[in-house]
Amino acid sequence: MMKVIIRYDEIGLKGKNRPYFENILIDNIRRQLNKSGFKVGIERVHNRIIVDSDAHMETYSKIFGIRSYSPAFVSSLDLNEFYSVIRETIKDRNFNTFKISAKRLWKDFYLTSMQINEKIGEMVQRNFSKKVDLENPEIDIGIEILRDRAFIFTERYPGPGGLPYGVEGKILMLISGGIDSPVASYMLMKRGGDLTFIHFKTTDEILKKVRKHIEILNTYSPKDMELIVEDHREMIKNVIINLGEMNKLKWTCVFCRYSMLRRASEIAEEIKAHAIGTGESLGQVASQTLKNIMVENLATNFPVLRPLIGFDKIEIENYAKKIGTFDVSVSVRGCGCPFLPQKPITNASLEDFLSIKNLVLKPAEKEYLPETYERNTC
Amino acid sequence: MMKVIIRYDEIGLKGKNRPYFENILIDNIRRQLNKSGFKVGIERVHNRIIVDSDAHMETYSKIFGIRSYSPAFVSSLDLNEFYSVIRETIKDRNFNTFKISAKRLWKDFYLTSMQINEKIGEMVQRNFSKKVDLENPEIDIGIEILRDRAFIFTERYPGPGGLPYGVEGKILMLISGGIDSPVASYMLMKRGGDLTFIHFKTTDEILKKVRKHIEILNTYSPKDMELIVEDHREMIKNVIINLGEMNKLKWTCVFCRYSMLRRASEIAEEIKAHAIGTGESLGQVASQTLKNIMVENLATNFPVLRPLIGFDKIEIENYAKKIGTFDVSVSVRGCGCPFLPQKPITNASLEDFLSIKNLVLKPAEKEYLPETYERNTC
Repeated sequence: MMKVIIRYDEIGLKGKNRPYFENILIDNIRRQLNKSGFKVGIERVHNRIIVDSDAHMETYSKIFGIRSYSPAFVSSLDLNEFYSVIRETIKDRNFNTFKISAKRLWKDFYLTSMQINEKIGEMVQRNFSKKVDLENPEIDIGIEILRDRAFIFTERYPGPGGLPYGVEGKILMLISGGIDSPVASYMLMKRGGDLTFIHFKTTDEILKKVRKHIEILNTYSPKDMELIVEDHREMIKNVIINLGEMNKLKWTCVFCRYSMLRRASEIAEEIKAHAIGTGESLGQVASQTLKNIMVENLATNFPVLRPLIGFDKIEIENYAKKIGTFDVSVSVRGCGCPFLPQKPITNASLEDFLSIKNLVLKPAEKEYLPETYERNTC
Repeated sequence: MMKVIIRYDEIGLKGKNRPYFENILIDNIRRQLNKSGFKVGIERVHNRIIVDSDAHMETYSKIFGIRSYSPAFVSSLDLNEFYSVIRETIKDRNFNTFKISAKRLWKDFYLTSMQINEKIGEMVQRNFSKKVDLENPEIDIGIEILRDRAFIFTERYPGPGGLPYGVEGKILMLISGGIDSPVASYMLMKRGGDLTFIHFKTTDEILKKVRKHIEILNTYSPKDMELIVEDHREMIKNVIINLGEMNKLKWTCVFCRYSMLRRASEIAEEIKAHAIGTGESLGQVASQTLKNIMVENLATNFPVLRPLIGFDKIEIENYAKKIGTFDVSVSVRGCGCPFLPQKPITNASLEDFLSIKNLVLKPAEKEYLPETYERNTC
């Protein structure tokens, strides 16, 4: 039966923390396979992780920390057995050129990688009358020599890279139902973040999109990530009434983002997160100008991680398509934010912000006026 | 003579701010061309910017905000002239298949884009006996119809995308001489940041690398960006002595980053920046764990923009190669940070940090002990 051999370079660089990272990766592999009801033996040998079965191959492309993986046959450390495994692997395949790519991970093996390439290459050439092509072979036969056995394979699939899920600690992630926040979530998961999501709810329909996004993101995670839902209408109502009274509704986006970050900050503290994540991209929309971000950022002492801050819209969309979250994002016709004022401020000044902040955030004295802010619903 | 026709989609989305963005883009094009001593007429028609000469074509690939550009011939709005321009353009070229891609930016032109494609396509087919291939033509002949003339071209070069340099406002950018910070700088420039650099100097050699990085980044900027150099040894000395006294040198990286951010924050305030930028990538090195970033972030109220926070090392390296900063980064053999302790803390606790912070940052009572921290110099 075939096994899977898994490579995980970047965490190999981690020096003294390496065993810690490796154990989390192994644990994540086990848990992500378990999610499909699949229990299996996993071991680590040298710089490789070996899974005892080649079922559920598609799962590995979604386990962060994996650089590449191959379904592989096992052989004892014997050149003739190498050859007979290779013969069985390639005998029914249609090809003209090949290459042997041996890698001696166990340095005490009696032949160098080069010597293995030559000897096995010769055997294949002689018996199959095929040509060696080192540059562009039709079949690239890999042999990885570990302490007690060798793995032989012809396919190498890319993993998603990154660090094992969760290894860096907890991040509270703002998720909106749009295109950007799922991509930002993916990137922070990929770099070892353990995400808890927070959504500021305006409608059931958007909340449904958020749940679908999280469902997709969960396929990249060893666990089902939690979603906290806050009532955004209730939270923002106060701000809107006060701003309306002050004739300053153009500040709505700034105080909306400020209020979300402030509430996120409270929750981040409760759940002992180490950072807040957002899908912000510099200059993309009115609330994401540099000047607005500057004042909004005052809402929290937590670092705000914005993995998309340097991305273009088109780059974010392509990323979203790649990870599978795009279609959900665009599945409901966008109605725009129901609270968006006609001319949102794009260059919030710190002085102006500070001078009105307490007045805007204080409990409103008047009752709620839905006409003033339900302008864009559809 | 040929002109250049420039497309700039994303800033076209900016609604009411569009003229502002367009004017900055035009100004940036003028200034970046001027840098090569090249003065030229520039105008805006419909959704396009036209430059009056096709010299210095390479410059446009380095002007943020440009989506694509083409060297183009000008024609009056007459189908026969379209054809004769096309005939001159393609008559000496070796091809079998072609396609006409007309775009009517001026909607009052009497033919639709489709009708132009058909009529001109027919003329080319008849006179050159070449085949139309809509999927994969060897020559794709573009015709863009503006109010008073048409532009005809066969090449479309990609611009760098993004927003016009500087349109978002000032960012104080930490630059180290390594691989990451020039890439992060590029990304923030690309999203409209107007960068001032700050380097915490340890050696002349690294400062030289930083200057080279900025020289390369300046080729993407309409102006020469400023570099502020701070004496890092002087700044960190105090922290090292105090930590040494307390037997807590493993906290060096955390307080080093904290001190840099704190100083950057003071300078950001002086120069009226709106944010601080860094090349941090989550989990990449000991000082960039999530827990460390959390306490280091307390050094400033400015938003810290970390465009690489969700990137893998290999992704950053590929980006650095693409923008041309990689070779400088690796040009001097890395000696590691001279202040790096043997076991840097990777999971700084907020409580521990706050309990020692004032003791670490207070003026040191003892003299400076170079042996304790010059361990890794080479």
